[in-house]
Amino acid sequence: MSTKTKKISVPGFLANGISVGIKSADKKDVGLIYSTLPAKVAAVFTKNSFKAAPLLINAERIKKGTAQAIITNSGCANAATGKEGYKDALAVSAQLAKELQIKEEHILLASTGIIGQRLPVKKITGGIGKLVKGLNEQGIEDAELAMMTTDKFPKIAIRKGIVGARDITICGIAKGAGMIEPNMATLLAYVMTDALIDNKALNTVFHQAIDATFNCISVDGCMSTNDMAIIMANGLAGNNPLERAQARLQRFRDMLCDVLNELCQAVVKDGEGATKFVTISVEGAKSRSDARRAAYAVANSNLVKTAFYGQDPNWGRIIAALGASGISLEKERVTLSVGGVLVYSQDSPANFNTQKLKDAFKKDKIEVRIGLGGGDKSYYVYTSDLSAEYVKINADYST
Amino acid sequence: MSTKTKKISVPGFLANGISVGIKSADKKDVGLIYSTLPAKVAAVFTKNSFKAAPLLINAERIKKGTAQAIITNSGCANAATGKEGYKDALAVSAQLAKELQIKEEHILLASTGIIGQRLPVKKITGGIGKLVKGLNEQGIEDAELAMMTTDKFPKIAIRKGIVGARDITICGIAKGAGMIEPNMATLLAYVMTDALIDNKALNTVFHQAIDATFNCISVDGCMSTNDMAIIMANGLAGNNPLERAQARLQRFRDMLCDVLNELCQAVVKDGEGATKFVTISVEGAKSRSDARRAAYAVANSNLVKTAFYGQDPNWGRIIAALGASGISLEKERVTLSVGGVLVYSQDSPANFNTQKLKDAFKKDKIEVRIGLGGGDKSYYVYTSDLSAEYVKINADYST
Repeated sequence: MSTKTKKISVPGFLANGISVGIKSADKKDVGLIYSTLPAKVAAVFTKNSFKAAPLLINAERIKKGTAQAIITNSGCANAATGKEGYKDALAVSAQLAKELQIKEEHILLASTGIIGQRLPVKKITGGIGKLVKGLNEQGIEDAELAMMTTDKFPKIAIRKGIVGARDITICGIAKGAGMIEPNMATLLAYVMTDALIDNKALNTVFHQAIDATFNCISVDGCMSTNDMAIIMANGLAGNNPLERAQARLQRFRDMLCDVLNELCQAVVKDGEGATKFVTISVEGAKSRSDARRAAYAVANSNLVKTAFYGQDPNWGRIIAALGASGISLEKERVTLSVGGVLVYSQDSPANFNTQKLKDAFKKDKIEVRIGLGGGDKSYYVYTSDLSAEYVKINADYST
Repeated sequence: MSTKTKKISVPGFLANGISVGIKSADKKDVGLIYSTLPAKVAAVFTKNSFKAAPLLINAERIKKGTAQAIITNSGCANAATGKEGYKDALAVSAQLAKELQIKEEHILLASTGIIGQRLPVKKITGGIGKLVKGLNEQGIEDAELAMMTTDKFPKIAIRKGIVGARDITICGIAKGAGMIEPNMATLLAYVMTDALIDNKALNTVFHQAIDATFNCISVDGCMSTNDMAIIMANGLAGNNPLERAQARLQRFRDMLCDVLNELCQAVVKDGEGATKFVTISVEGAKSRSDARRAAYAVANSNLVKTAFYGQDPNWGRIIAALGASGISLEKERVTLSVGGVLVYSQDSPANFNTQKLKDAFKKDKIEVRIGLGGGDKSYYVYTSDLSAEYVKINADYST
């Protein structure tokens, strides 16, 4: 995280985060990001059937390709709240449009917290005046703090570089600290950039970048009701146009992936109760989808996760999880190594140094490499361990 | 469990369980079930790609439809052990055939414990003499004790009744205490009966009964490397033949389902660290497969499981897990009730009594009912909660 040394800012973006009393004590719970001029926008939404009200509204608004503000509250998800919840979200949006004096359709909404409870609309609308008044160039961290729930630290990443003959900035913030797919708590990620880019290119590049980063910690079919990633590009940098099939678009995409990758690693590191950062790499698969299934089967196995937590070199659980993944595999060709120690090949335990394997399980970062020997497709997943602390955090979240 | 009052026995079956020093202290770790005459046999095996050596051997032997003995060791799974592991299992089988003076092909093998370690063959073969010598009519509980790993209590169920004009007995034993699918520890279940039944009917009925019971706690594609269920029928009861499409076959199946259902409920109750017994029922689905997917999506959600553990009435997590299941649903038609309290319908929280819901979460048995309103198919799953104790048990299983 680059937040400790100096305040983060992106040309043309103001932000703020305040407490309106949704969460306990004086914790910030409403955040705002505002682009001083209308920005190009692209977004990725959860595929959950019970999308929260703000996402339903955003999905409509985003179609026109322009947005200027994102308001987020924590402490209440406004999900499974039906028509009333939808109206509640609109009430927030109307009030914000009035205060910001922008078109209401340029406002995007986000909520995170407990599902099935009504949004405390009055608390939020009552605070919007103060929220808008306090908007400032260095307010990004405050906006981030306001959307945190069980997160232990803010997640902000920034890259600056020359793209299309101009200095551009890409800054992302994220919230989310649940165990990852299929058990993640809500994940929200916002990216602000001053790059000049058209809607078509922005949309393509953002989907590609999310697929290469957050989708590897699984912002996909197993998301919560409120997961969402949004990018706003206000064009202030005045760079040469970024269009498809251009080297400079590739450069922009690389910077964007860097930002998102840093954020999603931070999300895994902050995994509720996590003590380990684990990478599961699957290589040699017949298809990417096979590699993905295998990687997730291992990453989501509670028995594998608890072994990492316990620093227990019980590698057989990884083999069992792989074997239960449902992909077709030739077990004689499968190899497994943990922390560089080859533990299994040719359908038998390898002749490994037990102490080295124990040491590998003791590290904070553990790399699991699975070779399937059946093709050239691969996939990797970042995951965390499953600790007693995770259970404690989630056993009394709402009460 | 019916074990406390008197010793359990099934005509024509002898059993025993002893300690040969695989597990620590003097814990029983090798068990034997023996039918005094060759019995008809049927079995269901894990679909895991890394089937343990004993299962590979059994799969061949079971084809002929006859078996006479099952030997089981705990403390070592003999899985992911390749050709050496296969030979190790055969060595046990050869020695047992010699001691029992029966055909080696009539011996079935099972192992449960840590994956990826060689079977301590000498310890086992060295104990077989004693094991066989001690075979007795009331030894079933000892055989059960010998196959337990993290199980807290033995799981034995028995039914007696008239089928085909004769008294018959069906007795089942099971081991398994992991969290259920996809994280269960190895599940082994053996059924002994003196019913006279042909192979075809036995095979059909056993698969149907497993499907209606153990498959609802998921002995299926997500099983461990060693999961297996076996039934042996020695025909001693001399009942009228049990053939397909007969009422008496139906009666036999009902008794068998009763036995298996009692066992699988016991497995869930003994779930590692479990404090709750939860039934997830899904009704009104378009297909059984949809109902099943929905039920498992909820049952396997760590966020749902921790809420049960914490007695936290956070029902929104159930909705979120359902929405992430990937089945197509009309959310306006979905209803959710927990412990008889309707909490969600018409895409909104229902007007429920909060205290009643809190009380429902505090009970040892919790029933979650999900209505999809889209068809007439249903499915239910038994599951347990996810406790800090589960993490502790599994964090240092092998060390």
